[in-house]
Amino acid sequence: MRRVAVIGTGHSKFCFNSEKTQVEMLAEVALDAINEANITPKDVQAVNVGNVLGDFEEGQGMVQSFFANDIGCFNVAASRFEGACASGSMAVRDAVMWVASGYYDIMLVGGVEKATAMGTPLATRTFAMFGDSRYEFPAGFTFPAVFALLAHLYSNKYGIPLPALKEQMAAVSVQSHEYAVKNPNAQIHKAISKEDVLKSFMVSTPIQLQDACPFSDGAAAVVIASEETAKKLVKKPVYFAGIGQASSGKLSSQQKYLPRIRARELASQQSYSMAGLTPKDMDLCELHDCFSIAAMIAAEGLGFFDYGTSGLAWEKGQTRIGGKIPINISGGLKAKGHPIGATGVSQVYEVTRQLRGDMAEQGRQVDGAKYGIIDTLGGDGVLVSMILSTM
Amino acid sequence: MRRVAVIGTGHSKFCFNSEKTQVEMLAEVALDAINEANITPKDVQAVNVGNVLGDFEEGQGMVQSFFANDIGCFNVAASRFEGACASGSMAVRDAVMWVASGYYDIMLVGGVEKATAMGTPLATRTFAMFGDSRYEFPAGFTFPAVFALLAHLYSNKYGIPLPALKEQMAAVSVQSHEYAVKNPNAQIHKAISKEDVLKSFMVSTPIQLQDACPFSDGAAAVVIASEETAKKLVKKPVYFAGIGQASSGKLSSQQKYLPRIRARELASQQSYSMAGLTPKDMDLCELHDCFSIAAMIAAEGLGFFDYGTSGLAWEKGQTRIGGKIPINISGGLKAKGHPIGATGVSQVYEVTRQLRGDMAEQGRQVDGAKYGIIDTLGGDGVLVSMILSTM
Repeated sequence: MRRVAVIGTGHSKFCFNSEKTQVEMLAEVALDAINEANITPKDVQAVNVGNVLGDFEEGQGMVQSFFANDIGCFNVAASRFEGACASGSMAVRDAVMWVASGYYDIMLVGGVEKATAMGTPLATRTFAMFGDSRYEFPAGFTFPAVFALLAHLYSNKYGIPLPALKEQMAAVSVQSHEYAVKNPNAQIHKAISKEDVLKSFMVSTPIQLQDACPFSDGAAAVVIASEETAKKLVKKPVYFAGIGQASSGKLSSQQKYLPRIRARELASQQSYSMAGLTPKDMDLCELHDCFSIAAMIAAEGLGFFDYGTSGLAWEKGQTRIGGKIPINISGGLKAKGHPIGATGVSQVYEVTRQLRGDMAEQGRQVDGAKYGIIDTLGGDGVLVSMILSTM
Repeated sequence: MRRVAVIGTGHSKFCFNSEKTQVEMLAEVALDAINEANITPKDVQAVNVGNVLGDFEEGQGMVQSFFANDIGCFNVAASRFEGACASGSMAVRDAVMWVASGYYDIMLVGGVEKATAMGTPLATRTFAMFGDSRYEFPAGFTFPAVFALLAHLYSNKYGIPLPALKEQMAAVSVQSHEYAVKNPNAQIHKAISKEDVLKSFMVSTPIQLQDACPFSDGAAAVVIASEETAKKLVKKPVYFAGIGQASSGKLSSQQKYLPRIRARELASQQSYSMAGLTPKDMDLCELHDCFSIAAMIAAEGLGFFDYGTSGLAWEKGQTRIGGKIPINISGGLKAKGHPIGATGVSQVYEVTRQLRGDMAEQGRQVDGAKYGIIDTLGGDGVLVSMILSTM
């Protein structure tokens, strides 16, 4: 199969209470990506979009065909993907295959969400539909509760007393906020201290407000193309070196494995194997930190740290620029924001721009980065992993 | 790319008020398809599912990973597709590419919906989210109104007075009910007369109740595999000869083209071209008759009849077994039922079984059928077209 590259990127500012519709948000970021790719809307042969709850949020389903037509991508094949918070990555991964196979040469992939339109209490309950609704939601498993459970399991399994674990978790949030201040697209531009985290509102013990990402509105888009086309159009195509996707069933079905997420480990193994690379080869990582404990579990599942040690790594600065593996230099879901359907595409945007060296002007460039990995978790267990490469 | 075949099929009875959850419905039809394919759940490498409103209908998003895990397809890549009523076909078409490309060898595709869980008035308003929600829904464009508009445009454009058009439309419904009586999976097992149609409740002039498909609960599944694998596993693989997908924007964006649906014509051209076949080569067709006028427009857009003449064809029996092109010998959406996310997969089930010669026992076999085409319309304009072949 052919190699496939990102040749254009677009990203809205992530925010609370956007005044735009999802179709409008997608249209803007898509045109940015199309312009950057040096193509016109008519060159786009097909569109994939990640969008989780557009119908709940503003009574609009099937955003993909409406926005595509609005910007002049007339009559393209247009598909919407839903895998909860991994929807955007799922849409990207799928597009990679359609281009790799030779069927399409240029595709546009977007992700969008207007999650704050629902209001926070409804949003938490609505998001819980992406856990098991029949047996587990009635037992109290909204996602804050799921990750609270994982934090307790993590504490027990690795022998880290909760007070120490909470300090480690706080270090994750502190770092994300610090980098988000440098990211103009980030939703929250405010540094926080460990004390801010530990004093914040208790959501679901031991998860406090500052251990959790916000609800967000936003969109991101990328244009992808075959290697041959990419080289004609742009100076620095960024290639997909590996892709992976796996899933789990309801939380209770994963009982033996928790707090590790087996689907993540399988999906990232697929990516590493396809790329012929290992965790040590990665120069940066954007991973799914919907909660700070989720970030710690992810960093271990991706192979960067031994199980039970990633919190220490954050505390020691090993996840910062210059550390062992720079993680979420965008600010992550925690502070960049988490418009669910857009998140995976936003991660691709971030890693692509890092690999092109575009982040120096924002003071958060990982110098000389050649390989970056993306990790997106949807609900109780759809996992998408992708490795991007400069060559 | 490799050729891809259907090697297993499963189909629930379509019905009102199913007592099963969507995960349960999917699990049952998927196991039937897996058994028919002579494989086990562990042989399935990835799962695609078409599901439109599962979150609205029963508060469960992301059904694909929960059902897959429940039946023993552990940790597979599992993606949900949404393109309104074309979601199931979209999921099938996408899976064809993943197998054709060589990435996967065996995939399971399901479609499911529990549309009657919402109740009819809410369902109509909810479905309207798959038209443009900002400008057109507030102007009254639920889908009965959209197709009422198309009926008026059709009447004007082709010079068919409404009373005559209504008789033609009635002929479509009468035929569908007649065949549905022979289909054990059909939701409505009751023949109706032209008078029954013309006397039925007026929904949106000139669309009457018996011009419209019902809301439905149901599921369907197929297993697809590469040609090499298919030949090892089953005696009669049925091949995908052509696939196509296109879209339109909001209804008003298609103004010049209506009542023709440009996306349909493009998508079917893609299918015919890929297959190297023409409408004359088709031995049967399952098309999207959400309303009787929709069936007429579809039959013309697919190239079976001149514009403005398909109603006459139905009246003359040219769409029956033995006629020019047997259409919706399943009973169609009108009488087989229309569980939206399942419909496209159900169409693939029907055409596959016709091409295998399995329908003789139900007294509705199209003898010697070699090629069949599937047409699914989602909302205002996602269109999927697929051609299946015995060889």
